[in-house]
Amino acid sequence: MMVVKLGGSVITDKSKLRTFRRPSCDRLAAELGRAEGSLAIVHGAGSFGHIEAKKHSLHKGFKDDSQIHHVAAVQRDVRELNLKVIGSLISKGIRAVSIPPAASASFRGGAVRSFEPAAFVQVLGLGLTPVTFGDVVPDESMGFSICSGDLMMEQLAKHFKPELVIFCADVDGVFDRDPKRSKKARLMPELGKSALAELKRTEARNADVTGSIYGKIERMLAIAKHCEKCMIVNGNVPGRLRKALRGEQVVSTVVLPE
Amino acid sequence: MMVVKLGGSVITDKSKLRTFRRPSCDRLAAELGRAEGSLAIVHGAGSFGHIEAKKHSLHKGFKDDSQIHHVAAVQRDVRELNLKVIGSLISKGIRAVSIPPAASASFRGGAVRSFEPAAFVQVLGLGLTPVTFGDVVPDESMGFSICSGDLMMEQLAKHFKPELVIFCADVDGVFDRDPKRSKKARLMPELGKSALAELKRTEARNADVTGSIYGKIERMLAIAKHCEKCMIVNGNVPGRLRKALRGEQVVSTVVLPE
Repeated sequence: MMVVKLGGSVITDKSKLRTFRRPSCDRLAAELGRAEGSLAIVHGAGSFGHIEAKKHSLHKGFKDDSQIHHVAAVQRDVRELNLKVIGSLISKGIRAVSIPPAASASFRGGAVRSFEPAAFVQVLGLGLTPVTFGDVVPDESMGFSICSGDLMMEQLAKHFKPELVIFCADVDGVFDRDPKRSKKARLMPELGKSALAELKRTEARNADVTGSIYGKIERMLAIAKHCEKCMIVNGNVPGRLRKALRGEQVVSTVVLPE
Repeated sequence: MMVVKLGGSVITDKSKLRTFRRPSCDRLAAELGRAEGSLAIVHGAGSFGHIEAKKHSLHKGFKDDSQIHHVAAVQRDVRELNLKVIGSLISKGIRAVSIPPAASASFRGGAVRSFEPAAFVQVLGLGLTPVTFGDVVPDESMGFSICSGDLMMEQLAKHFKPELVIFCADVDGVFDRDPKRSKKARLMPELGKSALAELKRTEARNADVTGSIYGKIERMLAIAKHCEKCMIVNGNVPGRLRKALRGEQVVSTVVLPE
């Protein structure tokens, strides 16, 4: 089994509200469509989620009733993106079906309290490809919170122990410093926990309610424990995902478990 | 609490593939927006579901792998309708969020095997309005099957014991014969099980994978046991839903429990 994340920064323009990058998504869908074996897909919310969620502090949980309208509005927006991704995947021959995070998991304090893989198991058994996504979710202690796509990646990795986990990002992998800010940045072909300690904490350039790149790498290190290979590839470079799925050599960062 | 069904024949043109009747949905959303107290909404799939589901025999469960593409396609189509309905409701001030049937129920043999109301309880507790719908669902014995909106109405009625359950149909209520075929048809202001026995089994005019009007009435009789009042109103007549929600006298059929 393979689990692939389509980053919100690849399939949307993260700086422009609700802007879908259809050509990128269609190309990635075509690259995925050639993959053999069973597949689960996770996508980020990008500019269909983060901008409004941050504006109304949805990642901080319930503060006052004025947020509730925005919980509904952001859930709607994220499902609009999900529908576009599902349509793109189906158009490339992938029999994709949507499983919202709250349909398989419960949340407390912004973390997963329980995960029930049955919904994924059932659709995989039918030869369908489950697609889940970053979303606003009910939260037992906070009222509501944000479930990032990466959090769902971790749940899927834990329960399905996939051979291959691929994160499609808008960079070639993890650099020793922010490649968007420094020309001296060098790609790290491999990254373990010790290398992470040396990396400085950086901040994402655009609004993101699911944490910095540092936090994302910590989650990838946790995911790497549950799969044979966990890697980050540049989803904006045609062919990288396809090659990575085939096990071919490709520009990337492989995240190593402890 | 009130539970309202927006019939697929009201919010879509059931004879034309994927045709949303936005003016009707917006008007019903506005009528719903004036309701007091907590509310759950169910909508049918109309021409976003029935036509393709029937064409590929999805209501009969898994027969061969060629159906699987259509399971994905119909799920996508139904979610397109759901997104339109959610958008319509939000535009009228209802803080609507989507809960697909498979997120709260499991299915076997085309029937509900188990229903877990937590997803509905959580969003109602936040002051949100849950919206579920007719869908293609995984089925433990059939592979997949159809969960009708009416089936979800029954689950919600059973678990929430609402004061009022309203079905918005494209007719004034239940007639003593098919009002679309006979001018002699008379509206029955009340309908119990004994009256049902006298009704002849009729067939829906358009494709419908969830059974005849006879089957729908049987389900309404089951629902009537769990609520104070269960009624059918014509969703195509402006004001009927609004008046019914207020408890005002309105042209309708009230379905009586045993």
